[in-house]
Amino acid sequence: MRKLTCAVLLALAAIPLWAADVTVLTASRIHTMDAARPQVQAMAFDASGKVLDVGDAKEVLTRHPGAKRLDVGSATVVPGLIDAHGHMSGLGWAMLTADLVDTASKAEIVERLRVKEKELKPGEWLIGRGWDQNDWPEKAFPTAADLDAAFPDRPVWLSRIDGHAGWANSAAMRAVKRDLSGDWQPDGGSIRRDDKGQPTGVFIDNAMALVDAAQPAASEATAEKALELGMRAAVEHGLTGVHDAGIPLVELQRYQRLADRGQLPLRVYAMADGNAAALESLCANGLYRHPSGRLQMRAVKLYADGALGSRGAAMLSDYSDDHGNLGLLVMSPEEVAAAVAKAHRCGVQVATHAIGDRGNRIALDAYARELGKDAAGNHRWRIEHAQILSHEDLPRLAQLHVIASMQPTHATSDMPWAEDRVGPQRIVGAYAWRQLRDAGTHLALGSDFPVESVDPRLGLYAAVSRADANGLPAGGWYPDEKLTAFEALRGFTLEAAYAGFAEAEVGSLAAGKRADFVVLAEDPLAVPDAALRTLTVKATYVDGKPVYEAAKP
Amino acid sequence: MRKLTCAVLLALAAIPLWAADVTVLTASRIHTMDAARPQVQAMAFDASGKVLDVGDAKEVLTRHPGAKRLDVGSATVVPGLIDAHGHMSGLGWAMLTADLVDTASKAEIVERLRVKEKELKPGEWLIGRGWDQNDWPEKAFPTAADLDAAFPDRPVWLSRIDGHAGWANSAAMRAVKRDLSGDWQPDGGSIRRDDKGQPTGVFIDNAMALVDAAQPAASEATAEKALELGMRAAVEHGLTGVHDAGIPLVELQRYQRLADRGQLPLRVYAMADGNAAALESLCANGLYRHPSGRLQMRAVKLYADGALGSRGAAMLSDYSDDHGNLGLLVMSPEEVAAAVAKAHRCGVQVATHAIGDRGNRIALDAYARELGKDAAGNHRWRIEHAQILSHEDLPRLAQLHVIASMQPTHATSDMPWAEDRVGPQRIVGAYAWRQLRDAGTHLALGSDFPVESVDPRLGLYAAVSRADANGLPAGGWYPDEKLTAFEALRGFTLEAAYAGFAEAEVGSLAAGKRADFVVLAEDPLAVPDAALRTLTVKATYVDGKPVYEAAKP
Repeated sequence: MRKLTCAVLLALAAIPLWAADVTVLTASRIHTMDAARPQVQAMAFDASGKVLDVGDAKEVLTRHPGAKRLDVGSATVVPGLIDAHGHMSGLGWAMLTADLVDTASKAEIVERLRVKEKELKPGEWLIGRGWDQNDWPEKAFPTAADLDAAFPDRPVWLSRIDGHAGWANSAAMRAVKRDLSGDWQPDGGSIRRDDKGQPTGVFIDNAMALVDAAQPAASEATAEKALELGMRAAVEHGLTGVHDAGIPLVELQRYQRLADRGQLPLRVYAMADGNAAALESLCANGLYRHPSGRLQMRAVKLYADGALGSRGAAMLSDYSDDHGNLGLLVMSPEEVAAAVAKAHRCGVQVATHAIGDRGNRIALDAYARELGKDAAGNHRWRIEHAQILSHEDLPRLAQLHVIASMQPTHATSDMPWAEDRVGPQRIVGAYAWRQLRDAGTHLALGSDFPVESVDPRLGLYAAVSRADANGLPAGGWYPDEKLTAFEALRGFTLEAAYAGFAEAEVGSLAAGKRADFVVLAEDPLAVPDAALRTLTVKATYVDGKPVYEAAKP
Repeated sequence: MRKLTCAVLLALAAIPLWAADVTVLTASRIHTMDAARPQVQAMAFDASGKVLDVGDAKEVLTRHPGAKRLDVGSATVVPGLIDAHGHMSGLGWAMLTADLVDTASKAEIVERLRVKEKELKPGEWLIGRGWDQNDWPEKAFPTAADLDAAFPDRPVWLSRIDGHAGWANSAAMRAVKRDLSGDWQPDGGSIRRDDKGQPTGVFIDNAMALVDAAQPAASEATAEKALELGMRAAVEHGLTGVHDAGIPLVELQRYQRLADRGQLPLRVYAMADGNAAALESLCANGLYRHPSGRLQMRAVKLYADGALGSRGAAMLSDYSDDHGNLGLLVMSPEEVAAAVAKAHRCGVQVATHAIGDRGNRIALDAYARELGKDAAGNHRWRIEHAQILSHEDLPRLAQLHVIASMQPTHATSDMPWAEDRVGPQRIVGAYAWRQLRDAGTHLALGSDFPVESVDPRLGLYAAVSRADANGLPAGGWYPDEKLTAFEALRGFTLEAAYAGFAEAEVGSLAAGKRADFVVLAEDPLAVPDAALRTLTVKATYVDGKPVYEAAKP
């Protein structure tokens, strides 16, 4: 190849540089989520995945002569969807383990487990997740005995739909080194026992760790496989970003290895799990960002309480359907305060799991005390779930500039029994998306996968309908809290980006941002609510490159 | 009739008093708009029209044994709808005059006028309203000559769809005493003239008064008839309240006579028109409330500018489709400030018409200066229309506790040409219901009838769809500004009540409030958006009595 002369270089400078490496995407409509230019028909981006230009097809094409064309015809393009709260390896493991979601009885669960067992080597633990006693005829917690007949020797360990309770058979309990009988309880957890003090097989919240610890460790290859399966499922559903809500340092390192090998198909915004090694690492080494822009850690996930389904959510007064029960604290208020102070000192964003009204108050009190005058600043501290808020606490999120990171599908999963748990007064402050928005709160949306489906279409649908897949209850459950389709989409794009300090980079489509986008066959802002569940994801692009393309029909 | 003894009185006190005069309404669902108890199936109210109780059918019936039953079966009950901005006599006069709405050409207008002329006596003026040159092929203002061939001698006077321009024939112009030719213009108005200085027949804003004044006065009986026609149309569409947006003292007195005779079928919240006799009367005699509770005056309507369609809205910079044109001020900033100060001194609520971004800024500046530290108080000052707001002014309404009184159907009527008028930047702050809500603004909804239809179903539909009757544009025009059905309904009930200091009395259904409600065959919170336009109003109740009942099918 001959050297370019100066004259040739100057001649090249007169035409748009690397014009051939610019792509102009044209579509029936592009919802940019950029308030200044909400709807356009074309977008140009360069080979690095940077958006150069948005506008009318004619003007964009004129400004980029010689660009490659990517015409998606009648399709609609939206910014890449971001799930502000998911558990990637949890999703991957769920895909590797028995799926018990929507099982209607214990008998059906045993049946599914028998199928899954065929994939296992002798002695390997049989793991499942997704059971919910509220879906069974008897609506009571199960016992080890329910599993022992079918699985007398193989350890079986099944987590509840919300991840806040586990169900073990006797073989799994035998593998636990500590004697599980008696009247002791682990901090922030509860071993269910019969009247003779023997464990029944159900372990609530922190008590689950006893059985988890008894499992043989998974191989590194399997752990990577789980992450890869989770990410694959995410991009297939139109996600270009996930906030991984609490991972240990070892998982960050696993992600880092994948990122180094170019194997992250989407952006992962990881939160350090609890006041542990990953937070320590952020304090010691500073906030973390992989050079590819695909992996970050600058947040810590804390846990105020448990979940509502298992009555582990901490309430200010008794459960309406379980008098004397106030729920559980996973971290004490003092532990929360100490972790919050540490994060603040290290410039780390705090995201605290809080479901019950007491859990939320503990988080808000800790934030208020720690932030003081910094509350008006750019801390972007979050509450994860913010599910049940007392009337007095609802406006505090906006006052403290705290982001509500909420999951629309939790409302529609919980609506059959949530009011039983908290009664007609407290339910008015539950899943209160609109009240939080009206108070001025940033609302980032997600799914909490694998607790709920990773599919953001279900979240969009739940947000606008507050109804189940059959559209029931008609008109939606507490319809005053519904969002519009635009607001739901913003929650899964720009607001989720904001919750991850990334709104200058992703979440909307405008010059200077990243070309993360989804091609949908239908316009999510024009279809009837029910059709949001069945939007067709034709392709998912990250940094201007397809990371998922649907098979041609 | 014998006197009641003490014993009899005590015996009566032991049973529910006048139980037979209590009515228990039961329905498939009652959307109370009361956040503490949003959905119930029963409501009890007494003979005076006071709500005693809401709740489950069983509990309410148990608490009111012997009550009359009013079971509306599968129907849905919502609080009576309140139009926060209408013109009652304007609606009535429109019903008495030629309806030119949706005419597609000048020829069609002449045709409709010929039909209407048959009802008139010789020499009587032929009045019409509702033309819009934007709907015609030529899209230019009409002239007197367009009418003169068909009506050489009878005066014809036709107001534009927005009420901000009038079109006269030559006979009507001859009736004006002042010479209309030359180059003079009335304050806040404009006489359109040809290049010879002759009037063309079109009169903008305040110039309309010249032709109005030339008309022979209507009889008092006809004026009452107009009010009655307007109110009748309102209750037939489910309205139990109307804020009459600017009436002279003589009209208040007309309403008072009707109220004295028990002939107000709904609640009228009248605003004194401008800084004139009615405001003077409020200052001299105090805020006015008729003993029936059906008529009030405690507000004054001011006018910052004109309307967008006729380019009379005052803009901070030129119209995008008419360079050099900044629109018109109807009152000067000084006049607005003086009227606002007077209203403040007299404890009168201020409601200022403001359409353009300059009009809105003038109103906000005047409010801010006058209210000072009182801004956080209970003044409930309003901006009527608040149609185009500059980016900096959008948050000021919430900051000043100013209510946005907006008309969803204005957005859908104006959407074909509004962006031409103001361009792609300013349109982002136009009809910005959601941005105003997000900033914390109270949003009272209305129609501005007869500029738009009195039918609040069209307002609900426009609010949730931002689309025309055919659902176009697909997905809605600037869909980020859409409201949910619940928010739209709240805008026409509780928020409109709030804008009239009446939320403790009407706007929601709860014990102690008035039994103003509408019976709908369908559930407005459950139907698809498009079905809001065709909700069936089965009955309208005010103070517990039917003021409209649909004919049985």
